[in-house]
Order: sequence, then structure tokens, then C-alpha cells
Amino acid sequence: MTFELTKEYVEHIQAAIEAQDDTTLRAEMEELYPADISGILYELDTETARYLLALLDRKVGAEILANLEVIDRQEFLQSFTSPDLAQYVDEMDSDDAVDLLNEQPIQTREEVIALLSDREQARFILDLLHYDEDVAGGLMQKELIKININLTVNQCIEEIRQQAENVENVYSVYVVDDADKLLGRVSLKKIVLARKNAKIADIYEEDVIFVETYRPAQEVSEVMQRYDLDAVPVVNVQGRLLGQITIDDVVDVITEQAELDIQAITGITGDVEEEDDTIWKLVGARLPWLIAGAVGSLMAATVINTFNSQLTKIAALAAFIPIIGSTGGNVGIQTASLIVQSLAEKSGLSATVGQRLAKMVLVALINGLIIGSLAGSYCLLIGEPRLVPVVSLALLTVVLLASFMGTITPIALNRFGINPAIASGPFITTVNDLLGIGVYFLIASLLLSI
Amino acid sequence: MTFELTKEYVEHIQAAIEAQDDTTLRAEMEELYPADISGILYELDTETARYLLALLDRKVGAEILANLEVIDRQEFLQSFTSPDLAQYVDEMDSDDAVDLLNEQPIQTREEVIALLSDREQARFILDLLHYDEDVAGGLMQKELIKININLTVNQCIEEIRQQAENVENVYSVYVVDDADKLLGRVSLKKIVLARKNAKIADIYEEDVIFVETYRPAQEVSEVMQRYDLDAVPVVNVQGRLLGQITIDDVVDVITEQAELDIQAITGITGDVEEEDDTIWKLVGARLPWLIAGAVGSLMAATVINTFNSQLTKIAALAAFIPIIGSTGGNVGIQTASLIVQSLAEKSGLSATVGQRLAKMVLVALINGLIIGSLAGSYCLLIGEPRLVPVVSLALLTVVLLASFMGTITPIALNRFGINPAIASGPFITTVNDLLGIGVYFLIASLLLSI
Repeated sequence: MTFELTKEYVEHIQAAIEAQDDTTLRAEMEELYPADISGILYELDTETARYLLALLDRKVGAEILANLEVIDRQEFLQSFTSPDLAQYVDEMDSDDAVDLLNEQPIQTREEVIALLSDREQARFILDLLHYDEDVAGGLMQKELIKININLTVNQCIEEIRQQAENVENVYSVYVVDDADKLLGRVSLKKIVLARKNAKIADIYEEDVIFVETYRPAQEVSEVMQRYDLDAVPVVNVQGRLLGQITIDDVVDVITEQAELDIQAITGITGDVEEEDDTIWKLVGARLPWLIAGAVGSLMAATVINTFNSQLTKIAALAAFIPIIGSTGGNVGIQTASLIVQSLAEKSGLSATVGQRLAKMVLVALINGLIIGSLAGSYCLLIGEPRLVPVVSLALLTVVLLASFMGTITPIALNRFGINPAIASGPFITTVNDLLGIGVYFLIASLLLSI
Repeated sequence: MTFELTKEYVEHIQAAIEAQDDTTLRAEMEELYPADISGILYELDTETARYLLALLDRKVGAEILANLEVIDRQEFLQSFTSPDLAQYVDEMDSDDAVDLLNEQPIQTREEVIALLSDREQARFILDLLHYDEDVAGGLMQKELIKININLTVNQCIEEIRQQAENVENVYSVYVVDDADKLLGRVSLKKIVLARKNAKIADIYEEDVIFVETYRPAQEVSEVMQRYDLDAVPVVNVQGRLLGQITIDDVVDVITEQAELDIQAITGITGDVEEEDDTIWKLVGARLPWLIAGAVGSLMAATVINTFNSQLTKIAALAAFIPIIGSTGGNVGIQTASLIVQSLAEKSGLSATVGQRLAKMVLVALINGLIIGSLAGSYCLLIGEPRLVPVVSLALLTVVLLASFMGTITPIALNRFGINPAIASGPFITTVNDLLGIGVYFLIASLLLSI
């Protein structure tokens, strides 16, 4: 069905490159899609990869470069001169061109733009460079097909013929007035089926969902998912049509967001991949949260140390430190992740913080009682009946506290514009660990009067 | 830009329903997209929601129902008779119709299919019911536009006119032979721009990416993302064109997979949403992993208890239980989540397990030395120099062990076809906690000879 990259195939290509067997290479690459060739480049060193790329048609090469992962592309393109880059950038969709240029040093970026032979492309890129990556303007491409409302279907087909050269997939034809203000859209299906002298004004749909340039990427992705859109037009505040965002770019936004959430939850910082990165990068990605966790735990150690005399009297107290810590951590993470999920969905009318807290308290009470009884029975089992009230009461309190923290932390982070998924990560675990141990020893010294 | 659901608006609609003010309701709903009306239904009780739905055009109603979340839809449709349901199912895309029918009891399902007035739709549905939900066959819809390779562009437009009634968005026109075998595709853009007497055989693209019915949904989603496809044709083993999968369905697959991963990591079981579910459902979603975690921690408690006499002698040993546990947990989760990520990406040739382990050991050694020195310095700070070797050596071992577990657990789970993201969750934390504490006390009794 699709191309499967094997070790043998890579070796075959490497051998052909070494032998400078351009005929074989061209024939082999002819069979593949640009996305597959990108996959092959990852397996070659910079020299051979450049050789292969140089053999191919510029347009195919541009697509291959657009398909590379950011990190690999940045490294690969370091060996390219500005004129080399300009040849490829000339052939790219404007959104991909801007992404690539944004990864380059400012000087290279300006040189490349100055060297572009397609002046429309240069203008497109200069327009797009203004926008942040994470708003609609930063996601859009300038390539689209727009027609004036006063045309007929026949004139419209002529327009499409002229404009379509630059546009890979035609999703919709956008209808604008003389000032380029977006009025609506007409599907290609309708154009195919309409009489040739019909007026666009009579067949177009006025009802069109659009986004403004300043809308956050997250919102664009929600809108496109909610209304099952393949493409959405982007307008400025005056309603002028500036570009369009296609669903494949939004799929990337969705995938990236999911990866960011999981990294936040699991305490990884920065953009790393297990396989390709250096040892130092992998160490650096893990260390910040590991140290934060260690510092938190050493604060817990300080708390425990102040209860040293009690521990000398009742050593069994130490046995319950793990359950206090892990229960607090698990409850906090579970609660936070459900809250994060409901924050992300924004479906319907959202419950107030008060309503959430009320429900949370009930759920925590039930879970706390069950876990508390379980640990209480264990105390009896190991012959420490005097610890039953201490351990069960401490666990109930810890579950309540951790649920409370798990509820309010993501809501608070979200208010301040920080990714709330962080609250399901090492941060909340550490805080809960610390709080839990404090509560446990306090309850112990109160109830056991030690 | 898009519709924002407010409390006032819902109250306004509720009041109109109570007053049976059908004119207002129809006028208001006319302004909205089906996806927005679905959002309103969530806020109404079953009676009023049914009243509102009954007012609307069947086709709009069908889209509204297709947009509802599974759980809510199942509950809502319980009050519908089979003839009621059949009226809506008649108007749905075949893939949505099958999803809806799969949620119904078998008897209702069969009644509805028998009652459909669109016999083609009934045949489509019976075809699709054979497939599992999580393979290409279960994602596809039967509606598509296919033309015989022997036609001209003009005949093709006539075909599109006849077939297009059922097809919402025309992405591509598929080209087949007399036996319905998929030969290629031709874009609508090409058809619009081609001469009317051109032959399809001369303008179509042979190069078409397709999937077989039995391919896993995950694979379909990867293929569509890799090649930036809006729609992919689905064929059987003989290459006969059976249906197509559109990108909006794949976006749902991607979003669901991300949610499942996060639930696996954070220890939530089952399909729950914070806002809408009952207390018991929320308790049930959290309890299994909480109990598993508690049992693990109580096993740790048993380990600690066997070192009771040592603890009585050196109470300060207890202070480091939290850092042993939390470091093991954090390292395990970080490692597992990076491994899970690289398993999911399958980009290029994957490193062998041996290569991963080698890299992992180096990263763990560095992190373990840093965290170990940090904790060692703390021992000096609190005046317990004899604990320096114990705590630092234990932490180094724990980091190595946890990294090892974090590397092999997801790989092993993946081999057995279990979602490897589970390895970033409470399971690995609990195991690491237990292992870590065992190692810590063992090292303590060996080094301190207590």
C-alpha cells in the first residue's frame, strides 16, 4: 500500500549515490512520494543527502524539505548557501516557506527573500513573517483561489485556470467584492455542475466560517474540528481575505499539542526525541524536573527529620511514608488530568469552579474512605492497631488535599495562560508529597501524643 | 466569528420551546450550523431537546445527531422509536449511520435498517456493519464519486451530477475499471480545467495512495498525515474500490488516541468527563489505579517494616524515603514517555533495543550522579555524614533501575499489543517505588552494618 523503508533499501540507495549512478537514483525516486524521500534523507549523512536532493526536480525537492522535521531540517540546511535555499523556497507553499525561513538566521532569511525569482512568493512571505507562529496568521498560506462576485461561472473557470497553478488542492473558491472583502464561498462541485453562464452571485454560499488573523492556533483547530472543515479562510479585522488554513496544518497543531501535553505531564522539558538526540540533550530534558522533584523531596526529608524522636519511638510510622506520598501523587494527577481535559473541551456551558469543587469533594471523600480503610486494615494485619486512626485519617486528608490541589492548580494555570497539563506532572506530585507527609506526621503526633 | 453558546441564549431557547413559539425557534436555528445546535441540545432535557429537533429539517437533524458525543447520543436516543430513528439514519452519511446504529441494541438496529426508505443506504450500512470500528473498513463511508476510465470529461461531469447528491464534499473523483477496480484518481480542479471531450484515461493520475479495509485505524491516520491527504480510498484485497475515509474522521482518531494516552499516563480508566458524569462513575474511573498504587505502597511498607530495628537506631534513614520514591517515579515516567513517543513515530529505521539501552544507561548515570550528589550534600547539611554514601549510591541505583524499567516496559507492552502509554502511569511509579525502597534499605544495612 505505502512505501516501507528498509535497511536494505537505504543501503541500496547509499551504494547508488557512491557510484554516482544517477539514472538508478532518478528512477528509484520517481517511484516515491516526497514524504517517503524525506524519510530516506534522515538515514543519509549530509553530503549524500545533498547529492540525492540535487538530482531531483526543484519542486519535488521543495516538498521534501517542507516534510522534514524542524530539528533535522535546521541542521541539514546549514550547509546550504542562500542562493541554494532560494531555489527551493521559490517552489514552496508560502506557509511552509515561512516556517523554513523562520528557522534560519536573520541574515540568511533576508538574503533568501531578496534572491527569490518569484516576486509574488517574496511578497507572500514578507506578509506572513509578521505573524506569530501560534495564531491563525502564522498558520495560513497565501495561496488560494478567489473570484469576484460579479463574474459568471465561465469567467470563474478562467480565473481558476490562472490562479490554480500555485494552489495544490482546491478546497473552495472564495468569493470577494471589489475590495477583496470575503463574501462567501462556492464549492468546486457547484462550479462543475452549474450552467456556464450562471452568475457566481446566484450560486455562492454566503454562509462561510472564517477566522481572523489574530485567533490562537488552538481556537482555529477547535473551529475546524467542530465544523468538519477542510480549509478555513483567514481575514483581517476589516474582513479582507488574506489567506487560508488547510486541515493538514491543523492536524499538525493537534498532534503537537498532544505531544506538549504529554511532555508536560511526564516532566520532559524541551523538544527531544529518544532516538536522535545527543546524550546531553536527553539529560537536559529530564534534569530540571528531576531536580525540582528532588528539592521537594528533600524538603519532605526536613519535615520527617523534625519528627525524629517520634520515629525512634514508633519506627512503624516510617512504613507508611510511601503510601502517603504515592496516594497524594496519584490522586492529584488523576484529578488534574480530568480538569485539564474539561478545560480543553470547552463543550457547552462550563461548570463553575464552585460546582467542580463540590463534586470533587464528594469523589475524594469516597476514594479517601476506601483507601483509608485499606491501609487501616493493613495496620491491624501488621499488629499496629494504634496506627489505624493515624494512617486512615491521614490518607483521607491527603486524598482531599490532593483533589483540591488537582482541581485548582490547572484552573489557575489556565487563567494565567500556562499550559494546564503541567499540573498533571511532577510539580503537583511533589507538592502533594510534601503536604501529605506534613499532614501525616502532624496527625501522628496529635493522635499518639508523642 | 463563530457561535458562542451563552446561558442567556439557552434560556431564551428554553422559553421559546415552552411557549411552543415554533416561528422564533425555526428562525433562530436557521442562523446556526448543525454542530452549534448539537451544543444547545446538551443543555436541554430530553423532552425539550426532542421538541427542538422535531422542528428542524430531517437532513439538519441527522447532522445534529451525527455531531453528538457517543454517551449523550445513546442516552438521548433511548426515547426514540425505530421509525423515528430510521428517518434520521436515512439522511446520514453511511459511516455516521453505522456509528449510531452500533450504539443501539441489536433489535433496534435491525428494525431501523428494515425501515430505511433509502435502500441504497440500507445496503451501505449492511456492508459497513461487518467491519471492526478500529480498522479502515470501520472508518470508511460508502459515499464517493467514481467514474469509469473509458468516459470523457463531459460524461464524467454528468456522472458527478448524478452521484454528487449523496456526497457532501467532493475531494477526488476515483477512476475505476469495469470491475470497479481502483485505477487512480482525478482532481476536480483538473476536471474543471480540462477540455470537455478529453478522455479521463488521458488526464487521470495513476499514482494513488489507498488503504485496504483491514488496516488498523492508527495506520490509516499515519498514512493520511504523512502524505497530507484529505481523503483516502479504501479497497478490498482484490483492489476493488469499496469506500473512502475523509480527514475529519481521522482527526477524531488522532484526538481520541491522544486522550487515551493521557488517561493511561494519569491512571484514569474508562471514558469519563469531569463535568457530566455521576459521582460513582468518577470514583470508578480513579479507584482501580489508586488501589493498585496503595497495594504497591503497602508492599513497600512491608519492606520498610523489616528494617524496623535499623530505623530505631538511625531514624534519619526515614527522611530519605520520599526522595527515593519520587526520583524513581519521575525517572521511570520520563524515560517511558520518550520511548512511547519514539514507538509512536516509527520514523525512519528504529534503533535496536540494545542501542536504546546503551544510551539510556549513559543518560541515567549522569542524572543519577547529579541527583545523588545533591542528596549527598543534604546529608552533610543535616549533620548525617554517614548517610552520604548510602543515599547517593541508592539514588544512583534507583535512577538506573527506573530508567531500565522505563525503557523495557513500554517496548514489552507494545510487543503484546497493549497501549504502551500505560508504562508512563501509576504502574511504573509503583513498581519503581517498591524496587527503590528495597534497594535503599539493602544498601543501608550493608554499608552501615546495622
